[in-house]
Amino acid sequence: MTLNLTRRLMLTGAMGTSIAGASACVSSVGSTTQAAAEGAFPPAPAIDPYLLGPKEGVALLSRNENPYGPAKSARDMIEYAASKGAYYTSFEAQVMLTEMIAEKNNVSPEQVVVTTGSGEVLSAIALIYGPKGPIVAPRLFWDTTALYAVNLRMANIERVPLAADMSVDLSTIEAKVTPETGLVQLCNPNNPTGMVSDAATLKAAVKRMASKTTVLVDEAYIELSDDPEGNSCVPLINAGHDVIVTRTFSKIYGMAGVRVGYSISSAETAEKIRATAMSWSPSLSIAAAIGCYNDEKFLAMSRSKIQEARDMVNTTIDTLGLTRLPSQTNFVYFKSGKEANAVQEAMMKKKISVRGQYMDYNEWTRVSMGTIADVERFCKALPEVLGA
Amino acid sequence: MTLNLTRRLMLTGAMGTSIAGASACVSSVGSTTQAAAEGAFPPAPAIDPYLLGPKEGVALLSRNENPYGPAKSARDMIEYAASKGAYYTSFEAQVMLTEMIAEKNNVSPEQVVVTTGSGEVLSAIALIYGPKGPIVAPRLFWDTTALYAVNLRMANIERVPLAADMSVDLSTIEAKVTPETGLVQLCNPNNPTGMVSDAATLKAAVKRMASKTTVLVDEAYIELSDDPEGNSCVPLINAGHDVIVTRTFSKIYGMAGVRVGYSISSAETAEKIRATAMSWSPSLSIAAAIGCYNDEKFLAMSRSKIQEARDMVNTTIDTLGLTRLPSQTNFVYFKSGKEANAVQEAMMKKKISVRGQYMDYNEWTRVSMGTIADVERFCKALPEVLGA
Repeated sequence: MTLNLTRRLMLTGAMGTSIAGASACVSSVGSTTQAAAEGAFPPAPAIDPYLLGPKEGVALLSRNENPYGPAKSARDMIEYAASKGAYYTSFEAQVMLTEMIAEKNNVSPEQVVVTTGSGEVLSAIALIYGPKGPIVAPRLFWDTTALYAVNLRMANIERVPLAADMSVDLSTIEAKVTPETGLVQLCNPNNPTGMVSDAATLKAAVKRMASKTTVLVDEAYIELSDDPEGNSCVPLINAGHDVIVTRTFSKIYGMAGVRVGYSISSAETAEKIRATAMSWSPSLSIAAAIGCYNDEKFLAMSRSKIQEARDMVNTTIDTLGLTRLPSQTNFVYFKSGKEANAVQEAMMKKKISVRGQYMDYNEWTRVSMGTIADVERFCKALPEVLGA
Repeated sequence: MTLNLTRRLMLTGAMGTSIAGASACVSSVGSTTQAAAEGAFPPAPAIDPYLLGPKEGVALLSRNENPYGPAKSARDMIEYAASKGAYYTSFEAQVMLTEMIAEKNNVSPEQVVVTTGSGEVLSAIALIYGPKGPIVAPRLFWDTTALYAVNLRMANIERVPLAADMSVDLSTIEAKVTPETGLVQLCNPNNPTGMVSDAATLKAAVKRMASKTTVLVDEAYIELSDDPEGNSCVPLINAGHDVIVTRTFSKIYGMAGVRVGYSISSAETAEKIRATAMSWSPSLSIAAAIGCYNDEKFLAMSRSKIQEARDMVNTTIDTLGLTRLPSQTNFVYFKSGKEANAVQEAMMKKKISVRGQYMDYNEWTRVSMGTIADVERFCKALPEVLGA
């Protein structure tokens, strides 16, 4: 039952990410206590110390999160919010974060919608535009939120094959777009490929498509790309194009468990999105985002560590003579030449968690940048697992 | 602009609650710093210390939250989760909380859906059942989430006048219900009246109505009622009736800013709700809920303090010879005989925040139980404000 529920939560709730050992973890509740609580009230129940993080000894390289997060600036604010009065939903804090995001992106606060993770804002967008017509998207993209709407029979996805180099085939996508298209959905950088579209080509294509329908660009990993500002489609919005950009605190900010994401669009579109989003965000989470949003030192440190890890992975893959895609993210997609699910299983035997197969890309593996130590283990394990 | 956005967030985002001084609060950012941060990274930005709680000197008696929360058992878990790896979305933690709720309520985990506050699960329910037919509900109830679906043109509300004593008029509601009814939505205890329906009468009516359509009972305040177990409609679910019960950690648990709520229903209904809910919950929030869910000492202390405050308020109202409703919650709805919005304004001049007018109940005021000190201020202010 636990296993079934875990699977169902994973399928319906979220990332569609496989979590190694999830059910085993749940059944070992009570093995260790948290730091002893003092005061008049009893301590919190004993819980598995790995319930809220990777299991002991497991290199978690299957999820595209920043292992150095959340920043101290975020954790300080969480503590502050919890002590100060997290019993109140704080619209004031939400307004403050909205204004900070607006200022940094040269838009007005009315154009920004903050939600409980970008999963929520993306799901809301899928619900708004899905009923209008097909969601046109590259064959491989982060499709969880579009599938949310498909599952509710509120949308259909029209997938366009990737180009030969596995980049997003913008010209073929553009050729599919008509005024009857519900939404064009792109990820830049894309997931699981990690590839960034050429900025000039992308922006020109987005402008033309946006004259026919709404274009959504999910920029979840943009802060990790070589030129975040140059790559972003945000400037197209104030130039009057029908474009929505989404971003998240789950990736470079390392706050996937804190859940803050946002969209930037026209004020009119933002109003629709705001009305459709379903939850209101924890003040704890909003406070954390306020704390770290402009923490440039944390972001620079994270970028540098992720780059270092990616260089290690790239070198290992290149040394083995394997094909890999040019990643500008914290994950690398490479063609191992072996069944992806078999590679995943063999890695798991070494307590290294990587992603399994995507669609019919059966010989491709996605590995995410964890800590340097965890990535070292992957680099050492890869030739062994591949029998190289 | 700030003000407009604040208003819009309040209208679309959530509780429809008026927050005194919200915009003033936002514009005073930077007045005080949080506890100094140490370490390699810069401290979090200076924020208004009241951004995440009531403004200094304001008795916040306009929101039905427990001022003694979150419990230490919850705060400990927030800290633990933030230190342990809140960068991971934790399905394992969500499964654990789901199992805890299931166990306490004698249902299976498949019957429980945990969301980011009960606002989300109630909104999802409104989206599922609204398109089927009208949502039949008492004239006064917590209608925010039904209105969410109305606003999206996914539902209509059919409001049934309250009985002469302002209780929910179950027999008139029942007479309206047909198989074409989308949903019957009740709050027990009701908001803003604070009244509990007679348990036997309620359960009998719910059973009969549930033979025609789905009946939702929002039990946000049930833990504050005199007989939580006896009043709850949860037992009807496993007896095979088409009933959904929702609960929240926002009220007695004092976690409105942490956002955890849940529904209990048949497993089949739960699957639909789970598929429709839009966000996935912060692991911080889930951890907090795990921490305090069975913290009976905190719950008993809270109940006792709220009861003490309510007795004070009741005595004050009775002494003034005013009509009040018999509340089994942490708020009291009373007929001041003066314009509700004028009472609200006069109270605000004394830095006491109470609710303004509901619908056309223009001489009724809702006051929530804050700390004893804050409630004392209300009791002292009331005769002055009413010119009694």
